[in-house]
Amino acid sequence: MTNPDFTATFSPPVMQARTWITGKIFPAERPLLNLSQAAPVDPPPEPMRQAMAEIVLNDPGAHLYGPVLGLPELRDTVAQQWGKIYGGQIAGSQVAITSGCNQAFCAALATLAQAGDNVILPSPWYFNHRMWLGMSGVETRALPCGDGMLPDVDEAEALIDARTKAIVLVTPNNPTGAEYPAGLLRAFFDLARKHGLALIVDETYRDFHSVEGAPHDLFADPDWSDTLIHLYSFSKAFRLTGHRVGAIIAGPARMVQVEKFLDTVTICPNQLGQRAALYGLQNLSDWVAGERAEILSRRAEIDRLTDDLNGWQRLGSGAYFAYLQHPFDMSSEVLAQRLVDDQSLLLLPGTMFAPTGTDGFAERTMRVAFANADVSGLQEMARRIAAFTG
Amino acid sequence: MTNPDFTATFSPPVMQARTWITGKIFPAERPLLNLSQAAPVDPPPEPMRQAMAEIVLNDPGAHLYGPVLGLPELRDTVAQQWGKIYGGQIAGSQVAITSGCNQAFCAALATLAQAGDNVILPSPWYFNHRMWLGMSGVETRALPCGDGMLPDVDEAEALIDARTKAIVLVTPNNPTGAEYPAGLLRAFFDLARKHGLALIVDETYRDFHSVEGAPHDLFADPDWSDTLIHLYSFSKAFRLTGHRVGAIIAGPARMVQVEKFLDTVTICPNQLGQRAALYGLQNLSDWVAGERAEILSRRAEIDRLTDDLNGWQRLGSGAYFAYLQHPFDMSSEVLAQRLVDDQSLLLLPGTMFAPTGTDGFAERTMRVAFANADVSGLQEMARRIAAFTG
Repeated sequence: MTNPDFTATFSPPVMQARTWITGKIFPAERPLLNLSQAAPVDPPPEPMRQAMAEIVLNDPGAHLYGPVLGLPELRDTVAQQWGKIYGGQIAGSQVAITSGCNQAFCAALATLAQAGDNVILPSPWYFNHRMWLGMSGVETRALPCGDGMLPDVDEAEALIDARTKAIVLVTPNNPTGAEYPAGLLRAFFDLARKHGLALIVDETYRDFHSVEGAPHDLFADPDWSDTLIHLYSFSKAFRLTGHRVGAIIAGPARMVQVEKFLDTVTICPNQLGQRAALYGLQNLSDWVAGERAEILSRRAEIDRLTDDLNGWQRLGSGAYFAYLQHPFDMSSEVLAQRLVDDQSLLLLPGTMFAPTGTDGFAERTMRVAFANADVSGLQEMARRIAAFTG
Repeated sequence: MTNPDFTATFSPPVMQARTWITGKIFPAERPLLNLSQAAPVDPPPEPMRQAMAEIVLNDPGAHLYGPVLGLPELRDTVAQQWGKIYGGQIAGSQVAITSGCNQAFCAALATLAQAGDNVILPSPWYFNHRMWLGMSGVETRALPCGDGMLPDVDEAEALIDARTKAIVLVTPNNPTGAEYPAGLLRAFFDLARKHGLALIVDETYRDFHSVEGAPHDLFADPDWSDTLIHLYSFSKAFRLTGHRVGAIIAGPARMVQVEKFLDTVTICPNQLGQRAALYGLQNLSDWVAGERAEILSRRAEIDRLTDDLNGWQRLGSGAYFAYLQHPFDMSSEVLAQRLVDDQSLLLLPGTMFAPTGTDGFAERTMRVAFANADVSGLQEMARRIAAFTG
């Protein structure tokens, strides 16, 4: 009595990878270097933690149900700051706060596609996007990325049929790190509009984009809300992963449907996390700028290290991720486990991000979630890969 | 480009009811009495808030991602305490922590039923259960409750066909307050097992059950996990509604599927809420006993007040709710808005809990979420209903 769409869906990759390291004893001179998950390893900065403790003690509302679509002040602040960043008109009523950005995606998708419909995902993809579609009985149409790990608009158009409901883009990308150029995003927006589809743009890693200013001009289109659904996460910029706060920006008709999903699945986003996100938006812009500079310096280091790495090739890098092609005649899934055993190094294999058994791309590639390691950690990673590769 | 299953699903009732009171000015001598939502109106007790503030400041893990299925110590504590309460064998691995009990329901259901399947819900039902099924394209088979607002096992059996996947029971019930007798739960368990269905028992309001000890003996069945899926909420007992913490107890095969859903929708439950729930289980059993005594005294008062209330009839009461039949020749939806306008009293109409336009039950009935009012507030409610009824 199990939904066959669930049986056909793979298990959570991060948890599966955890089984490769659980119970293993790593040598003292070579402790585990875990570059598998895109997550800050430190808590939010001290002033934010102080503010949160104060709220826990003295703001009763932080412990009670709130509006389904989130704290009005947080929605308004997002609308105002995003309007400024992207140079567009966004109202607080067009912002919904969610229990993390994964939920933002699920909510948006559920309002668009039912079982039997299809959605276009550039491949490699973020595995939880693929899982949601699979569990919902919605077909995933893979759009293999080309040079620079960028998807092609014409190839996307060739995948569209009467049951296509949306195109999903993630920029900066997980897993490849690729930053989609503003012109490419505009071309996808025009394509989606032409076919009456939604264009979902997941910008979870926006705060670590290497380009200053607006990463695209879609919000400047006066009719953006007919087509665009923007997703965001407060987890990365403010180190709030454990509090589950994300956002959807969409038009009013979409919001009516999104509210049904959010009410039914979680009633409201957690109140303390929302207040922390608001504190962050109001007080931590300088701190986030420092975090961004640090991540960009790590990216520069990983680019340098992988420019010449014993036959490995870098296919993309940006935000928290680099995406590498390995030189071995073995599947990335086998390789990932061998890197754990031989080098105490955990990377996720491409088989977790792309269709397997087709063109071999999934089997040839690996994701490095490099944001969790400092420059010396990244150098150690490169040494271990080199030692393994010989 | 909207999923027609969403268009066909009603909007969140609590938010809809909120529009009936928004912007209204209520007379000073008759302020709004809001008995629409089942939610504590006060924050958790001071010692728990102190413990939470301490965690926010000094436990970095409270701000970071954790395991998809929840904090191991919380899962183990639930398993141990539930095993004792229900007299059964429950392992920590059979417990998943969720982002509230609504998510627990959605996760469990999604693993069972796909579009085109059907699920049996006693009617009146909890509206979010109905909404999830509707948005998922799963048919709801209504099982109208009879005397004492209890569902009948034979009538349930008559609704089962090859595409029936589960029977969902809520006890103590939302919206009727009915406490399902242990024997009835056992009979539904046997029915579900006989037909290879899941029996989902949502015990969100268990801590306010009027019966001391185990409300049923299903966990004592050595094979409970083949059939039973138990749902729980930490929101009510510990006043943690704003933190979103619930639980699923189910067998290992179910848990593998549940983990896919939870990972994809929220990655993990929020960490602070989980730590607060653990604190509550470890330290607040006496405090919860006091809360229960208070709720039971309010229930006694509402029973007394509605025994003789100008033609109104009480169909059920228990935990946070009483369910009433009104004497008017108008739909409960119209009546609810007239009670707001004439008496500054907000109750939810039966039309939010049962199929409309069939037997008139939905139109004849109203839910009172009485837990939010003290005894004098309940007396005031009865005065206003009497004044309106004349």
